[in-house]
Amino acid sequence: MKLALEEARRAMEAGEIPIGCVLVHRMQLLSRSHNQTQQLNDVTAHAEIISISSASQFLQSKYLENCTLYVTLEPCPMCAGALRWARPARLVYAAEDPKMGYLRYGSGMLHPSTRVAFGLMREESAALLREFFQRKRELKSLKR
Amino acid sequence: MKLALEEARRAMEAGEIPIGCVLVHRMQLLSRSHNQTQQLNDVTAHAEIISISSASQFLQSKYLENCTLYVTLEPCPMCAGALRWARPARLVYAAEDPKMGYLRYGSGMLHPSTRVAFGLMREESAALLREFFQRKRELKSLKR
Repeated sequence: MKLALEEARRAMEAGEIPIGCVLVHRMQLLSRSHNQTQQLNDVTAHAEIISISSASQFLQSKYLENCTLYVTLEPCPMCAGALRWARPARLVYAAEDPKMGYLRYGSGMLHPSTRVAFGLMREESAALLREFFQRKRELKSLKR
Repeated sequence: MKLALEEARRAMEAGEIPIGCVLVHRMQLLSRSHNQTQQLNDVTAHAEIISISSASQFLQSKYLENCTLYVTLEPCPMCAGALRWARPARLVYAAEDPKMGYLRYGSGMLHPSTRVAFGLMREESAALLREFFQRKRELKSLKR
């Protein structure tokens, strides 16, 4: 999760909402990525989607069994839907996202074989997101 | 939708589940794509995700306002989640997918500004899917 937070900080430096993730396969780091929706002008360029695609290329497998995805924020429904198809063994997220997170639609969005944990480095992730939106509001009020 | 069905047939020829889509912006065709999850070894390579990414590149915009997505099957939750972020004006799908479609989670998965229609060329799309799974079962029984 420390690496995922590093990725989130990279997103922040690039002016993106600071969310990062890493995908690990049996103690081996397969991919690390951060949100790039602004830079790539693409709503699908969430950290999780980038890491899932990239890890699948590496493993030459659509299925990410025996993999763990660590992400700094509860995935959105799009990413949870992708995780359902990819079936990683574990999903670990740092901070909850009651507004945009997949849990609004229930835990059944994920594949039944994916175990879920959360709360790891929650405060660090939430602080980074708060800082990002605070800066954004300040910039906005300067422009007025 | 005729073009989307052509795309679905291309998927079929490539051994993919036959689903196709096109994205149209003010009468102009922006992208056409079909399911490529097997060829690309990537669960995110659904027709809709490919077309959304590609159309966003063309428009240089994350948002697909004034766009209509025509797809031969009701989108899955991953694709509905992507559509929520991309906010097209309209989604038109041919056949319903009660098992894997997004409506299991309610129509609120899409953006409130996206209008939805379905049933256009439903029979043609459903017949193609039936043919694909029938062939697959036959191949399987031959292998036994």
